[in-house]
This record gives sequence, C-alpha cells and structure tokens, in this order.
Amino acid sequence: MRLKELGEFGLIEMIQKATPRGRGVRIGIGDDAAWVTSRQDSILITSDLLIEGVHFNLKWTSFFDLGYKTLSVNLSDLAAMGGSPAYLVLSLGIPVDFKVKDVEEFYRGIRRLASQSGVALVGGDTSSSKLFFISAFLVGHAPYGAVTRSGAKVGDDLYVTGTIGDSSLGLDLLKTSKARAKGLEIAYLGSRHRLPTARLKAGALLAKKRLARAMIDISDGLLQDLAHLCEASGTGAVIWQEALPLSRQFQHCAGWKEVRYALTGGEDYELLFCIRARDRARLEEIRTRLGVPITRIGKCVPARHGITIVNAKGTPLPFPKMGYDHFKDRP
Amino acid sequence: MRLKELGEFGLIEMIQKATPRGRGVRIGIGDDAAWVTSRQDSILITSDLLIEGVHFNLKWTSFFDLGYKTLSVNLSDLAAMGGSPAYLVLSLGIPVDFKVKDVEEFYRGIRRLASQSGVALVGGDTSSSKLFFISAFLVGHAPYGAVTRSGAKVGDDLYVTGTIGDSSLGLDLLKTSKARAKGLEIAYLGSRHRLPTARLKAGALLAKKRLARAMIDISDGLLQDLAHLCEASGTGAVIWQEALPLSRQFQHCAGWKEVRYALTGGEDYELLFCIRARDRARLEEIRTRLGVPITRIGKCVPARHGITIVNAKGTPLPFPKMGYDHFKDRP
Repeated sequence: MRLKELGEFGLIEMIQKATPRGRGVRIGIGDDAAWVTSRQDSILITSDLLIEGVHFNLKWTSFFDLGYKTLSVNLSDLAAMGGSPAYLVLSLGIPVDFKVKDVEEFYRGIRRLASQSGVALVGGDTSSSKLFFISAFLVGHAPYGAVTRSGAKVGDDLYVTGTIGDSSLGLDLLKTSKARAKGLEIAYLGSRHRLPTARLKAGALLAKKRLARAMIDISDGLLQDLAHLCEASGTGAVIWQEALPLSRQFQHCAGWKEVRYALTGGEDYELLFCIRARDRARLEEIRTRLGVPITRIGKCVPARHGITIVNAKGTPLPFPKMGYDHFKDRP
Repeated sequence: MRLKELGEFGLIEMIQKATPRGRGVRIGIGDDAAWVTSRQDSILITSDLLIEGVHFNLKWTSFFDLGYKTLSVNLSDLAAMGGSPAYLVLSLGIPVDFKVKDVEEFYRGIRRLASQSGVALVGGDTSSSKLFFISAFLVGHAPYGAVTRSGAKVGDDLYVTGTIGDSSLGLDLLKTSKARAKGLEIAYLGSRHRLPTARLKAGALLAKKRLARAMIDISDGLLQDLAHLCEASGTGAVIWQEALPLSRQFQHCAGWKEVRYALTGGEDYELLFCIRARDRARLEEIRTRLGVPITRIGKCVPARHGITIVNAKGTPLPFPKMGYDHFKDRP
C-alpha cells in the first residue's frame, strides 16, 4: 500500500498505534500539542534536519537505519551538552508514492533506539512533499547544568571518545562496490555510519563530575567541530596526529587516505571535550564508567596560534579544508 | 548576495545576531543544543511543517508574511491547549540560490510576532535543499493544565472565536487577479490568510477558568477539526448554519460559495471549543476579556448522530468533503 491510499490521518493513526507512551507523557500524538512533564527546570532542546540527497541516500540507507540514525544524531547533541534525553518530536515530508511499510520500518528504527534510550515520541507533523526529509526535535534535561562549547581555556587537555574517521570511511565503502564485499572490517565501518552511537553516558558523567569544561559532538568532522569549540572559547588548539584514535578496522581499510578521514570526515558522533590539565587524575578515576574509551589528542593553546595538527616529529600538517558547509558545498 | 556565497556558518551567524535573547534562555543559537529554563513542570510541545508548493506559494506570500505565519500557526496550537508559548526552534531547508535578504525578511517576520508574543528563538538547523521548507517547533507551558480534544460531552455547547472562512476566501482572492484590486474587503480577507492571529488570550483564559472542556484550533477547516474533536471525545455534533460567524468582508465578497468556505476552508486559526451548557453564564462573565468575539454555533450530540449542519428550517445540509488530507489530496 502507498501513502496516498492510506491518507494523512491513516498515517497519523499508524504512527500513534506504533508508539508506546513514555514516562512523563500526559498527552502524546493526536492532539494540538504534546503535554509532558519536565523532571527539571533546566531543559535542553536540539533539532536536526535530514534531507534525502543531502544527508542520506536511500540507495545505501535502509528505512530502519534512517529512523535509528535520526534519533541518534539528536541524542548526540544532548550528550555533547551533558544532558539526558526525554521527548522526541518528529516531522516528516514524504512523497505520496512511498510505501507504507517503508514508513513503518522508519518508525521501527526510531522505536528501537527510543526504547533503549528512554525517549518517548510525543508528536510531530506529516505532509506530502516532493522531497523526502525528516525534521527531528529532541527535548531533554540538564541535571548537572549544560556543558557548552565556550568553556575551554589555554592549557586544557583535549580528548575524544571512541575512534574517529570510521563513519566517513564507512560511507565511502557503502557507496562503492566494496560495500558488497562481506569483509568484517567493512561491515563494522558501514555500521558506524549507518547506526552511530550517541555517547550519552560519557557526556552525562563528564558533566556530573564537572570535568568537561567545553564539549561538542563531532558531526561535521574533527577539525571543523574543534574550530567551533575554539572559536566559542577564544582559544587555539594543537592536535597530535599520532594520538588520533583509529579503529583496527579503519587502519585495515583506509590506506593512505586515513588522515583526511580522521580529521575532516563527518558523522562520527563522538564527543570532543576539554578538561583542566590538573584534572587528569580525576578523569582517570571515572574512565571505566564512561561507556566508551577516551583518548587525549592535544591541548588548547592561545587563539593567535590557531589550530595546528602536528606529526610525531612536531611538523605541522597542511589541511586545506575543514569539513562540510551545507550551503557552499554541494552534495 | 545569495546563500551559497554566505555559507552555512555565515547564515547561522546572521540568524544569531538578528535574534534577541529571551527570558529564560541560558544558551540560545550556536551550541549543540539550546539550554532554557522551564517556568513550570507542565510543558507543551507542538510542531508544524510548511512546505513550498504545499502550504504556501511565494507568488502571493512574502518572506516576512511567511515568517510571521510560521510562528502564528504554532502559537495557535498552543492556544488550543490553553497554553502559553516560550521557546521556538526553527529548521529550514533552503535552496542555495535564495537571496540572503529574503531569508532576513523571513526572520524579521518571525521576530515581529515573537516579540509580541514573548517567544524566544533558541535554535534550529539549516540545510541546503532543492525544496524550500520550514519545520517549526514551539515549546510552551500549561499553567492551568492542558485542554485536550477529548473532553466534550453530549449536551455541551460548541463555540468558535472570531469569524470563519476568511482565510480560505482570502487565499482564493490572492490567487486570482481580484487580489490586485485594492478593495478594503479583499485586503482584509487577504491579511487574514497572510497574517493569522493565534487566539492565545482566549485559549489561556478558557483553560484558567476551567470553562473549555475540549478545544482545537481550526486549521484544516471547521468540519474536519470538529470531526477530530468529536472523534476524540466520542460525540457527534449539530452545527447551526445561520449561526456561523462570518465577517462583513466575507459576506461582501463570498457570494454563493460562502457555506463551503466557512465549513471546509482551512487556516482560520480560530478556536473551536465546548463548554457545559450550565456554564453559559460564567462564559458571559469573561466574554469581554477573551480578546476576540465568540459565537455559539451548535452543540454536542450522541456519536451515533454523527455531524450534521442544519439550516434555519432545521434541514440538514449535504457536505461531501470535510477538509484537506495532505496525502490523499494533491495541491
């Protein structure tokens, strides 16, 4: 069955039935607005757009994956503030000839991650559209206050969670025939692109312990997001190339391109954060409770030094392009 | 200048600079998430999509009007719950060859109504897109609890605020050459379509006084929104055709089509609500404080009687089509 046969209100009913009510939800989908309870007076709100042909391609993205990733990228924004997620609102523009079962798969992907992360889908809007796009909006709490991008100071240590470059390398592999090879490495890198993991536990604990002074999630590429953090904080940064955490699978597949992927590849959804150098021991104490490995990759320097990446010999690497600009770059 | 020259981060900076900080906003545009303070634990969240070619046409809609209306339709959803608005998040998909000054005009329209209604623009996402669309999310409070669609009982009186049919008639006039005539009536009807007024004061007072038992805003047309209210409440309804509140300008311009516009025309953004018949006197007491006239147009009847519109003689009118379905109907 196609959406044009189901109709708008049939679709809303389908979404409503498929959506379990969550904690704190008084009125979910189906009224003029959702009515929810805030557990704290300190609230975080984030949003993300995903547009077909810009942010995803249905040739190598399943509807389930797309649903999962839609929520994941929003969770990642809250993780980067040290927050915890609560309520999701989802608006979709969908071509009328889309299959109903594909839309159901999309919501199945949403629900899978929503139930894992304690998020309730409470509302949204749907409309026919020539272009398929998703606009998500996530409300959460900041029980420990929010960690912004602007708190870094000269001398702070810079850390990242997990490994970087996997997602953009995974995407390149998915795009090419290599993706069809059944290699475990490729499957791993592809899954890092398709089903990214938001670092909620790490973000919240770093906030709770007042360790992270500034934090951002790596969505546009390490260098670009580092530049945002540095600009907001009024610092520069030095990154040690040899310290960058690369997965075994990445090292197996990337070859000579590895530095580019790790420095400018987007959609890793790892956290980049800085702490006072004197807090290193305190960070070590909680390292095993962050839910993800962390790696020290550099430090904050005075703004006039800008951002440099140095190799093992201390020689700066040239990098012509920071990451992705949605208006200047064309997909 | 075009957007592709300004770039994504230039655009974000422009939006950020043009956006005054509002009450309760700790972190607005420019971090991973907005950080705001909730004035109550009872929170309302609503969202609306506006897609070019589906919800609006730039031939007869200015960018300023579009910004104003984007916020207005979301305010109307909160009004229909008896809530008060606080924080707006706005995501835009914009073609790269759009002029920067047009986008500025759009945000000027947003700001005009935001400052009038005490709303702060706290975040959003922007992306290049082949199709121009706007996805808005509005967070507000429900200090008196939320008025849902589902509280109507058999015997309740049905009321609407303001006048109905103006917006859809105004749109038809804007679309045709008649719009270029400078008649005051046409200008009024056009403005009702271009710059609708959310009935925030009426919605909040009806909630505060515990008068409205069920409420909805008329966005898809009176009959369709009445059907939503009746379905949610498990009632039917009788509407008295001769009681429908029609503006003088509407009566001047509509001619024989008037019933269709008033019953099925969308985008009036008036409130449809019901009260206990015994509360009529209490409603009269606050009538002048609602900020908009109200009219009793019918009553709730048992669900098995469905929805009927009767003329002055008590004869039911046939109505083949309730309103607009975004997937079954094509713009």
